[in-house]
Amino acid sequence: MWKGCAGMDVDYTHGYSCQETDRLHDQASVLTDLLHFDTLFPSGHLVLEAGCGVGSQTRILSRRNPNTRFVAVDISRASVDQAQQCARSLDLKNVRFQVQDINSLSFRSRSFDHVFICFVLEHMADPVKTLVELRRVLKDGGTLTAIEGDHGSAFFHPDSDAARKAIGCKVRIQAEAGGNADIGRQLYPLMVKAGFRDPFVTPRMVHANGGRPDLLEGFTLKTFTAMIEGVKDRAVSGNLIDEKLFDQGIRDLIRTTEPGGTFCYTFFKAQAIR
Amino acid sequence: MWKGCAGMDVDYTHGYSCQETDRLHDQASVLTDLLHFDTLFPSGHLVLEAGCGVGSQTRILSRRNPNTRFVAVDISRASVDQAQQCARSLDLKNVRFQVQDINSLSFRSRSFDHVFICFVLEHMADPVKTLVELRRVLKDGGTLTAIEGDHGSAFFHPDSDAARKAIGCKVRIQAEAGGNADIGRQLYPLMVKAGFRDPFVTPRMVHANGGRPDLLEGFTLKTFTAMIEGVKDRAVSGNLIDEKLFDQGIRDLIRTTEPGGTFCYTFFKAQAIR
Repeated sequence: MWKGCAGMDVDYTHGYSCQETDRLHDQASVLTDLLHFDTLFPSGHLVLEAGCGVGSQTRILSRRNPNTRFVAVDISRASVDQAQQCARSLDLKNVRFQVQDINSLSFRSRSFDHVFICFVLEHMADPVKTLVELRRVLKDGGTLTAIEGDHGSAFFHPDSDAARKAIGCKVRIQAEAGGNADIGRQLYPLMVKAGFRDPFVTPRMVHANGGRPDLLEGFTLKTFTAMIEGVKDRAVSGNLIDEKLFDQGIRDLIRTTEPGGTFCYTFFKAQAIR
Repeated sequence: MWKGCAGMDVDYTHGYSCQETDRLHDQASVLTDLLHFDTLFPSGHLVLEAGCGVGSQTRILSRRNPNTRFVAVDISRASVDQAQQCARSLDLKNVRFQVQDINSLSFRSRSFDHVFICFVLEHMADPVKTLVELRRVLKDGGTLTAIEGDHGSAFFHPDSDAARKAIGCKVRIQAEAGGNADIGRQLYPLMVKAGFRDPFVTPRMVHANGGRPDLLEGFTLKTFTAMIEGVKDRAVSGNLIDEKLFDQGIRDLIRTTEPGGTFCYTFFKAQAIR
């Protein structure tokens, strides 16, 4: 789960208002640019956002494509309500929201010009099944755009076995929940298996170093390290790792944001045609 | 050591002519573009290529910058002789060659407009010392361009512990020889330590998948996997790894080039100012 960065999922229940969250996202615009500089859809086209959550990506889609019509769906009524409320308060006029299971959509086949899905396939037990269903609702010649991270893509200086083991806990916990935190590298074969034509995958690396204090703070520390730290209790109570080793891993990740340190993480963006 | 791809070092003693090697390089032009699309120097400027080896990069520099003057140096007389012979046969008119130790150059301080160094720092026992010497011969305001790989950046699908251990053997063997095969991620702090101003580092990822059979064959198989396979004898005889596990690692790397597989590797390109 990506929180608080580049329009990644944000939990509004912790006292954030939409506007406050929006302001925070603006600070992460570097990452938004990296992932979304080419998320552009033609005027008048109809786009399905599959798995919109509380609408973190929806805001970006809507604003970058003011003349495109979006239908944003999520399986969670609570998330859709939040997303809708937020879109209203930000005056996003080109988005409708619906509660829908993206593995079994109520839309007729060939309804949409494009489908967009971001940070969702990593949580699906059978991502090919999901992609097949998304392909069904695409018009012939329509495109799917998918963005996913890949925790196994993380590497850093100074290197640290403890940090890699702490990251590994997050990967295992997500796998036990039926997901795949290393899914980014698999986007091409997943698209092929789901029947898409001509998938095209581009890696988008975040490379944080002393020349990019914004990324060291906003991405390495407050996004990635915070996310890994978030599984500590489950990792330790589940005997996946010794508490001291986990804590060392977190300290070593923090160390990569200090002078002389560097950090690399890769997102993957795929486009493919029905 | 990078062989046979994107103008990486090639051993001419195995029956290749310069022209034949040149033809092979053309096939790897995707990688050349990835690393060199922005390796451009102004007309009339004087550029030092530090550690030219047998001239694999020199050819690219010379052709992309026909109105720039290059001085290409290497510590090995044999390499310089080959590079010179090759440059002559390819009619490269804007390069002079010299035998020089890049840790102790005979040039006066502030002699060059730019310095270029590629796949060399990974072999230096003290890369900061090398960079300090290169900075010395740069004019005030002159730039250094450095390109390095990073073996720890490799990840792939299907993932394989054996493959990662085989790659680790290459990293250890290079470390025992005084080098650092994971140096790419460190370019920023190394530049800072050497006294350079405003280093700017961009990652350049090779992402091979079924849509890029040229990269699966030319990079994953014939370049990266062949390079790892090249340390097998030393790795096994040095007891770094069990032979069966190493062989399994190589098979698993080959597996990433078959249907459903993917492979990622990142080069880093740094530019900094004296």
